[in-house]
Amino acid sequence: MASPLEGGADALLLDLPRGPLQAYRARASFCWKELVLFLEGEDVLRLKKTIFSTLENDPLFARSHEEDISLDRYRELSFLRCKRIMEYNLLPLEDMVANPLWFQVFTNCLGMYDWSLAIRLLLNMVTFGLAIYNLGSERHLKYLPKIFNMEIFGCFAVTELSHGSNAKAIRTTAHYDPITQEFIIHSPDFEAAKFWVGNMGKTATHAVVFAQLYTPEGQCHGLHPFVVQIRNPKTLLPMPGVMIGDMGKKVGLNGIDNGFAMFHKVRIPRQDLLNRNGEVTLEGTYVTPFKDDRQRFGASLGTLSMGRVAIVGMSTVNLKLAVSIALRFSATRCQFGPSDEEEVPVLEYQMQQWRLLPYLAAVYALDHFSKSLFLDLVDLQQGLMGKDQSARQAELGREIHALVSASKPLASWTAQKGIQECREACGGHGYLAVNRLGDLRNDNDPNCTYEGDNNILLQQTSSYLLSLLASRIEQSPLKTVDFLEAYPEILGQRFSCPSINSCLDSSVPLAAYEWLVCYLLLESYQKLNEEKRSGRNDFEARNNSQVYYCRPLALAFLELTVVRRFHEYTHQPSVPPPLRAILGRLSALYALWTLSQHMALLYQAERRCGCPGGRDRPSR
Amino acid sequence: MASPLEGGADALLLDLPRGPLQAYRARASFCWKELVLFLEGEDVLRLKKTIFSTLENDPLFARSHEEDISLDRYRELSFLRCKRIMEYNLLPLEDMVANPLWFQVFTNCLGMYDWSLAIRLLLNMVTFGLAIYNLGSERHLKYLPKIFNMEIFGCFAVTELSHGSNAKAIRTTAHYDPITQEFIIHSPDFEAAKFWVGNMGKTATHAVVFAQLYTPEGQCHGLHPFVVQIRNPKTLLPMPGVMIGDMGKKVGLNGIDNGFAMFHKVRIPRQDLLNRNGEVTLEGTYVTPFKDDRQRFGASLGTLSMGRVAIVGMSTVNLKLAVSIALRFSATRCQFGPSDEEEVPVLEYQMQQWRLLPYLAAVYALDHFSKSLFLDLVDLQQGLMGKDQSARQAELGREIHALVSASKPLASWTAQKGIQECREACGGHGYLAVNRLGDLRNDNDPNCTYEGDNNILLQQTSSYLLSLLASRIEQSPLKTVDFLEAYPEILGQRFSCPSINSCLDSSVPLAAYEWLVCYLLLESYQKLNEEKRSGRNDFEARNNSQVYYCRPLALAFLELTVVRRFHEYTHQPSVPPPLRAILGRLSALYALWTLSQHMALLYQAERRCGCPGGRDRPSR
Repeated sequence: MASPLEGGADALLLDLPRGPLQAYRARASFCWKELVLFLEGEDVLRLKKTIFSTLENDPLFARSHEEDISLDRYRELSFLRCKRIMEYNLLPLEDMVANPLWFQVFTNCLGMYDWSLAIRLLLNMVTFGLAIYNLGSERHLKYLPKIFNMEIFGCFAVTELSHGSNAKAIRTTAHYDPITQEFIIHSPDFEAAKFWVGNMGKTATHAVVFAQLYTPEGQCHGLHPFVVQIRNPKTLLPMPGVMIGDMGKKVGLNGIDNGFAMFHKVRIPRQDLLNRNGEVTLEGTYVTPFKDDRQRFGASLGTLSMGRVAIVGMSTVNLKLAVSIALRFSATRCQFGPSDEEEVPVLEYQMQQWRLLPYLAAVYALDHFSKSLFLDLVDLQQGLMGKDQSARQAELGREIHALVSASKPLASWTAQKGIQECREACGGHGYLAVNRLGDLRNDNDPNCTYEGDNNILLQQTSSYLLSLLASRIEQSPLKTVDFLEAYPEILGQRFSCPSINSCLDSSVPLAAYEWLVCYLLLESYQKLNEEKRSGRNDFEARNNSQVYYCRPLALAFLELTVVRRFHEYTHQPSVPPPLRAILGRLSALYALWTLSQHMALLYQAERRCGCPGGRDRPSR
Repeated sequence: MASPLEGGADALLLDLPRGPLQAYRARASFCWKELVLFLEGEDVLRLKKTIFSTLENDPLFARSHEEDISLDRYRELSFLRCKRIMEYNLLPLEDMVANPLWFQVFTNCLGMYDWSLAIRLLLNMVTFGLAIYNLGSERHLKYLPKIFNMEIFGCFAVTELSHGSNAKAIRTTAHYDPITQEFIIHSPDFEAAKFWVGNMGKTATHAVVFAQLYTPEGQCHGLHPFVVQIRNPKTLLPMPGVMIGDMGKKVGLNGIDNGFAMFHKVRIPRQDLLNRNGEVTLEGTYVTPFKDDRQRFGASLGTLSMGRVAIVGMSTVNLKLAVSIALRFSATRCQFGPSDEEEVPVLEYQMQQWRLLPYLAAVYALDHFSKSLFLDLVDLQQGLMGKDQSARQAELGREIHALVSASKPLASWTAQKGIQECREACGGHGYLAVNRLGDLRNDNDPNCTYEGDNNILLQQTSSYLLSLLASRIEQSPLKTVDFLEAYPEILGQRFSCPSINSCLDSSVPLAAYEWLVCYLLLESYQKLNEEKRSGRNDFEARNNSQVYYCRPLALAFLELTVVRRFHEYTHQPSVPPPLRAILGRLSALYALWTLSQHMALLYQAERRCGCPGGRDRPSR
């Protein structure tokens, strides 16, 4: 099909080489260039081209049969590449500020090349840099230019050997000494060693270290962040009192030097407390703008949202790469056929389509969602920077936290399952390392557990939803939960669809999802109440309500949100008419497929819910 | 609990070291030594102890920080270890013949140490050696002692670059030259290169090569096996005309040197045709005991069953290792608690139990099934050796083929999902290479695709079941399908269970499974007929009936068989009374958990099947 594009975009999107995929490509019902342009926009395409050309033209980024590279060499290479990328300054700060989404594009492009590189860069610039910016004050701004010009290289140290998910239980201490006006950072024992910290193993010079802050009279004020120099930037030898090392080989992401550290009474200046949420005066008095410790703690960990949103993007990129590999293979690999002479591409088999095409649709739906969630977070971050104290800003924070806490699980699990399916769908060839599906799976894997374990994070989302039953909000800033206002009416509705064809629009599964979320919300509420009525404390009641209640509630809510956003995106008037059919089908396929995973629940609900008004209901 | 064992067994099972797991172990409701003794028997325990002691005491098997070992070195090491194991002769041939199951114990013990080692050994002794024994004749027996004393080292070459699952389409040729009385083995092009062959990359001296046999007048007689020397055993240099190489890094199993080979008019003696199923006379006349080509082809590939049964054992071992690691971690890792001071082991959380305990039950059920399937195959193999031409032997062959074809998928997928769950359930620690969950997953992964892709194999099982609808058999040798005789009555039954407690015996899910398999069998039959009635040929009709019909049919049938065998095993009178409760619970948990994955189907069936007699039914 001839390209309907203008000159500029056409030059960005070169024709694909004629090869064995040509036959399938010629059968497309739409112009792929038009689709790419609609999804990405010309500016983003230009940025991507710049990034990829830079990588292609610099031998440092050549993949020269690295299959048997040593751990040390891979870690060194990925650091050198990270430094080189910083030097190229491919995305100047002013462009990033003007177009925040470009930062996501930038890191995802690097991740398509190698996540070890991209994550090293993210850990330094965002996790470390943004933590200093968000948690510190004027006196810490001096660190920022040093991060950008690689004078210092940072890491972010919360997790300890024995505590990760339960961050409050972290045991590194920071005692204030008013005589020297220093904090003394100390690891009481090896179980309190900082653990898993990316960039720490070989390269980081500085760390944001979370430690329990003690004032001279002996009172503990809870977990606070400190900037601690851990290595001499010239020699990379550890600073006195810092015992530091690399954690060794991991299942994947081996270009990142995850490390551990123990601090033996390491003294740092008082000023290196990141004091946005809590400060110690020269004399040793603790001051905080927050009334309760819980609120302060929440604010200081809020900076983790950026990492979780980044993971949604990473997972989507991994799935995108895997699905592309598997579909291209399936279109060219022939096996069996109606006669012994004639073989057909495996993509023609219903089974192969059933295995792979839903993940193709998931890529588009999650890619759109990932961008929109990133922009929501930018909105929140701008409010933080502008010190917005409004009720909307607070409510936006809660809503985004609830979304992010289920987005990371949904995206990382969808990618995990999808990559596995792609690997198997490519048979033996999928098992050859050079075909990358193993690396994609192994590099995607930690997305399920780091920056908050998926199953633990989901509790944040379900808690948020349950809280809405108790105290209604007028309208949520992102409108993701507004439908819950009408939950009694929604639960009264019954699915009716005159024909299969009429189900092939995402509005149908969307309505079913609203019903499902309302149902699960009420079921979870009742289960929690039952548990409490039978004498269990809050901790036990919550734990016993996860498996069949709160966990599917959180996931279904997020699926609904992804489905809704992609439905609205693909049905907006600005969609070019030639693309409406294909985008509509992708939207319907994702929605129906993901809903179909709840079929047992829907049948069960129908049985239980003959009369939805007849059961235990919250009063508000 | 004091051990109730006699002296002999007690000496084999040493007390476990007192450590952090002690508290949980002390809470066991049964004596673990008694359980092990019941499951394994004293002789097997003695064999295991011999094998593990041998590995422990030989420095060649030391795992000395191999994490950063090169591919070449790992392949070399695993070959040296394989050779050493052959030299130890841990399982003398006469013991193996007297106790065939010991061979499974032997390979599984080696696999617990490292599958690369065990598979190298299996490929040489079983896949190569048994192929020669089963497919050849007297004149080939000379190879067998050479295999055992490592004079030659073998591999088994069926798969080509472009054809694996569709074995009939393999294109390597073997033309007979009556003048020199040789076959000329030839690869017409690179797509016909032998590919993926384990042991071929660096070490094998001989291969069983499958090639299309041509007699001098130019007629092709289909795929036949030949013994081809591919390397000089002294220098390991390739033989003239053989182009051979290593396939490079794989996702896992990197101690095995999978290889490729192209043959350029390589001449081998006429006698090296493995002639059990087809022979060429000196003059070049083709002779076969089989009437049709299909039957001959089936007989020559029948030897693959042993590999598939081995994979059921491998998958079970992998799951066993992963579940042990994850449960022990969960019992000692504490996180969160009812108060900030008190943390509880993560194993106490309902969520963690829900994630892991079903896989623990699956290990026991699959372990028992794996042994019983191995013994079934031994039964078949003994019939083959005795040239049993009875109807029972033929029927046993069909039944075992159907069982094996779904056993490999069920076991490998259960292990794949289970290891992934274990890896995630261990959080970050599960991602550290040294904790082995990554290697277990990566080494288990090919079990899903090699020796027959899982989804393709499942078609063999469903075809067998469907064939039973058309032509009944009096009684199947293993009685796995006898219940189908009563399918109209079974479909007329309705699930009724007075209380949840009464479901906690595996007889309840067992009955539900029988109903489910009958339902799916009828649904699949009807779907196939619909497809044919709407004008599709057999090939299309079969392809379009896999996703929601034949595939779940094959899996549900196999789950039923596993559940049935474990139910019978755990409920037999010889179970020691103190073990009845725990074994019964494992049986119920596995059965209910695996059945619960079909909940949507059961609800759906209930709706459709109000009157099961009212639909399209086969007449026999």
